[in-house]
Amino acid sequence: MFASFAELSDACHHLPQPHPDAAARAASREAELTKPPGSLGRLEELTSWLALWQGRHPPRLDRVDILVFVGNHGVTAQGVSAYPAEVTAQMVANFDAGGAAINQLAKTAGANLRVTALALDRPTADFTVAPALDEAAFLAAVTTGAEAVSPDADLICLGEMGIGNTTAAAAIAAALFGGGAARWAGRGTGVDQAGLARKRAAIDAALARHAGLLDDPLMVAAALGGRELAAILGAALAARRQSVPILLDGFVATAAVAPLARLNADAMRHARAAHVSAEAGHRLLLEALGLAPLLDLKMRLGEGSGAAVAVLLARAALACHTGMATFAEARVSNKS
Amino acid sequence: MFASFAELSDACHHLPQPHPDAAARAASREAELTKPPGSLGRLEELTSWLALWQGRHPPRLDRVDILVFVGNHGVTAQGVSAYPAEVTAQMVANFDAGGAAINQLAKTAGANLRVTALALDRPTADFTVAPALDEAAFLAAVTTGAEAVSPDADLICLGEMGIGNTTAAAAIAAALFGGGAARWAGRGTGVDQAGLARKRAAIDAALARHAGLLDDPLMVAAALGGRELAAILGAALAARRQSVPILLDGFVATAAVAPLARLNADAMRHARAAHVSAEAGHRLLLEALGLAPLLDLKMRLGEGSGAAVAVLLARAALACHTGMATFAEARVSNKS
Repeated sequence: MFASFAELSDACHHLPQPHPDAAARAASREAELTKPPGSLGRLEELTSWLALWQGRHPPRLDRVDILVFVGNHGVTAQGVSAYPAEVTAQMVANFDAGGAAINQLAKTAGANLRVTALALDRPTADFTVAPALDEAAFLAAVTTGAEAVSPDADLICLGEMGIGNTTAAAAIAAALFGGGAARWAGRGTGVDQAGLARKRAAIDAALARHAGLLDDPLMVAAALGGRELAAILGAALAARRQSVPILLDGFVATAAVAPLARLNADAMRHARAAHVSAEAGHRLLLEALGLAPLLDLKMRLGEGSGAAVAVLLARAALACHTGMATFAEARVSNKS
Repeated sequence: MFASFAELSDACHHLPQPHPDAAARAASREAELTKPPGSLGRLEELTSWLALWQGRHPPRLDRVDILVFVGNHGVTAQGVSAYPAEVTAQMVANFDAGGAAINQLAKTAGANLRVTALALDRPTADFTVAPALDEAAFLAAVTTGAEAVSPDADLICLGEMGIGNTTAAAAIAAALFGGGAARWAGRGTGVDQAGLARKRAAIDAALARHAGLLDDPLMVAAALGGRELAAILGAALAARRQSVPILLDGFVATAAVAPLARLNADAMRHARAAHVSAEAGHRLLLEALGLAPLLDLKMRLGEGSGAAVAVLLARAALACHTGMATFAEARVSNKS
């Protein structure tokens, strides 16, 4: 799909715009519904956002896709995770068998779950010694992500799984926003104090080794990220190009799209943050990107789990917007 | 049901206790599920809370009842609301016809909506000149609320509707926790600056007029509250007596049960705060009661709307708890 960093970068700068007419129609219906104006708070914002980016009023949630991308990370050799790297593939089997949290949450949210494992038998390079992905491998993963997006989806949730990937996410965040590992690295799935120290050391080593690349957000994504993060970036971009709003899951999914936002602040305007996770770097990253999370439930699982829960909010919002009576229909007196 | 304040107070001090054995069984299953321990955050807490108070593992959400109590308030004569008092009855008709926000949200949450209108043709007395309710009228409303609770419910949401009732709620909060109207009164459904000044004046006048009663939380509830608030108090107490956990909706529902908590801090331990509303007093009141809200969506509608949205979280939590595979079942390696 993209032959070079330059082509991808160019695509990020030529994007379709949203549809304020649809959002205006949503706002005018909202004002007529039997409730004080604005009293559904962020639920009203969600409806407006769906209309704005779907370009349709009323917006729809007939098809919600949860895309979970999965990758393996060479940096696990540095002892950065609480779990062994083989858990990545084992969890893919668990997703396929319906046994993971995201399977239950997708069902609860009435969403389609699609899990894409990216070359699990070929982990990225250990980024303390070499770029995690070269340009070709990075672009291949971006393309895989883009191809997972259906224009028939009304909303897409982006999530991930990959032992070691909060290390990659923290490295990307540090490269894009500064502050080093101390600011961005947390305990991930629950690494102990010694493991956290190794994680920070690995990130700072990578930042030093790849210092020459860090001015280019796409090179950051390739050198410090991973296949599942690249796929999320590709899916986020493809969703924008196909007028599908997206819900970002946690720290890793947010870090995966952060290079897009650094390349062009406009490129991620169709995204909302589903939640803020318990991984401390996530809150900082959302602030850096100007994203206000919908939920704060101290979740820190990944898999798209927080995004799936936020789908429930979107469904609640849309049910109110489409199902409520107007003041006129219900013969309820408006403000005195 | 209760013949006097004294009998009601006595009931608040003789309450069944929770079931730590059921919560322990929930915790031990939680630890075996294919996710890092604690990674579902507050969803795990919700499951544990349901088990603890239902006294059952796994807990159930087969029947969720949303109880919405509705009352009229004499203090509306002071011009404290943005809407005319006749809206209360009009909204009951809207609930019955299925046109309100809570109708859509109850459907989305798979919950039963039961609306109870309490003597709408007999508003409470204007509390700036007399106690809102006398003992008999207060206890009758408490009983109505208690009788709305079914022991077959697995979870009950408590909500309300009543033009003028954020004025009553702020007065109760001020009486119980101090600080006067300036601390507790907000814009409710959206009263303007002059209306807010009238609202504050009415509350402070009531606090002065009823100063002699304010040491007794139940007298506070009667003198400053309303029938729908009294019914919520009764329902909350009955739920506790019948081992049904409750989700409190917004500022008014929380203020309605605050007298119970002041009478006996243990009496509201089966309650969780569904959300913190945009009405500023709500956050302060939750803090005063030691309740951590599940959601912060800037909602300020009442009707049980925030509680209904939180039911979605409980359903997500329970789906994970009951549906996920264990590490052993899925053959996923546990922490290294």
